[in-house]
Amino acid sequence: MDSCVTAALAARDYECAFLHLNYGQRTEQRELRAFHDIAAHYGVSRVLAVSMEHLAAIGGSSLTDRSMAVTAANLHATGIPTSYVPFRNANLLSVAVSWAEVIGASAVFIGAVEEDSSGYPDCRQSFYDAFNVVIREGTKPDTRIRIVTPLIKMTKGDIVRTGITVHAPLHLTWSCYQNEDLACGLCDSCALRLRGFQSAGVPDPVPYAVQPDYRL
Amino acid sequence: MDSCVTAALAARDYECAFLHLNYGQRTEQRELRAFHDIAAHYGVSRVLAVSMEHLAAIGGSSLTDRSMAVTAANLHATGIPTSYVPFRNANLLSVAVSWAEVIGASAVFIGAVEEDSSGYPDCRQSFYDAFNVVIREGTKPDTRIRIVTPLIKMTKGDIVRTGITVHAPLHLTWSCYQNEDLACGLCDSCALRLRGFQSAGVPDPVPYAVQPDYRL
Repeated sequence: MDSCVTAALAARDYECAFLHLNYGQRTEQRELRAFHDIAAHYGVSRVLAVSMEHLAAIGGSSLTDRSMAVTAANLHATGIPTSYVPFRNANLLSVAVSWAEVIGASAVFIGAVEEDSSGYPDCRQSFYDAFNVVIREGTKPDTRIRIVTPLIKMTKGDIVRTGITVHAPLHLTWSCYQNEDLACGLCDSCALRLRGFQSAGVPDPVPYAVQPDYRL
Repeated sequence: MDSCVTAALAARDYECAFLHLNYGQRTEQRELRAFHDIAAHYGVSRVLAVSMEHLAAIGGSSLTDRSMAVTAANLHATGIPTSYVPFRNANLLSVAVSWAEVIGASAVFIGAVEEDSSGYPDCRQSFYDAFNVVIREGTKPDTRIRIVTPLIKMTKGDIVRTGITVHAPLHLTWSCYQNEDLACGLCDSCALRLRGFQSAGVPDPVPYAVQPDYRL
């Protein structure tokens, strides 16, 4: 959902190329389908789906390690959840910047959310600020690429409302960490997403096994 | 050669894990063999060889794009050579830091050379300084990983002399960008390496098709 709304915002001002990362996460196939569906929706033909199987080999996350359980959401918990994939977004941004430098892109959009999020360290604005310095120092002198994080200060409710305003195809998105057919409604990602739709007062177009009320 | 001397320096103070990156470069198989040979030499069993085929798909470099020629060395040229793989070292470091965070490593050694090098932007100390900030901002609060670049200020002659001093197995290394059996002696990487051995006054143990004198 966050990537889709980010794409909708980017598509207003830029000719887009879409990048997707498979990293051995449980819902890899469903996410890849969503990626291609959203690319088709926007008529984006320049797409790159990258397999980073090493992130699963490295492990350390309940998203990629089948021996770790995907825990039920606790939106009041503090600390970093087991779903954290170590340094994942640096891997993603590195691929994006390599590609951007070759095709001459000027911006890399990413749907990271800092405030109303799971507390992943690589979703903080300070991480993206630091990465912008790495890009400046590690690319050709005439390369100008900046990371853009339009959602970073939004709540999930803001993201849903923004998505509806810009006609983002939210029905094509997938957020559940656990299932590929019917969203579980219980994992951290489902909980955050459902709370967003509930606080925006609109139904989520994606099918769920259960939809607890997360507004409390 | 640079990676091997770096590994030799790291092995004096650390229990090591070795990471190798295949990225569709022409000499991928020969470099992978060198990686395993050097790991065996040091008795390092924790090894990870990662395939980043997307760097070849992205292209933009004579090392990965078969339609671009590997140009003959010109050690007096300025500018960034065609062998530059866009933002490659950020991709490499991102994998290394993901792995380091999971296994609890405290340092990531990389054999980057700034002064006596091909002029790649992602081999500059300023790039590694910036990346250290990204690591601090993008990993768990209790994670402490720093990038170490022991060769960054060395000439290739210094690297050869240091390698000999610390008994690095230079005969197991491979540097040629072009060939996998007999080093060409003509590409940028061969030229820099040969100049290093020539200025150190010792023979290179690796076989060459030709060995021009690069000391001028």
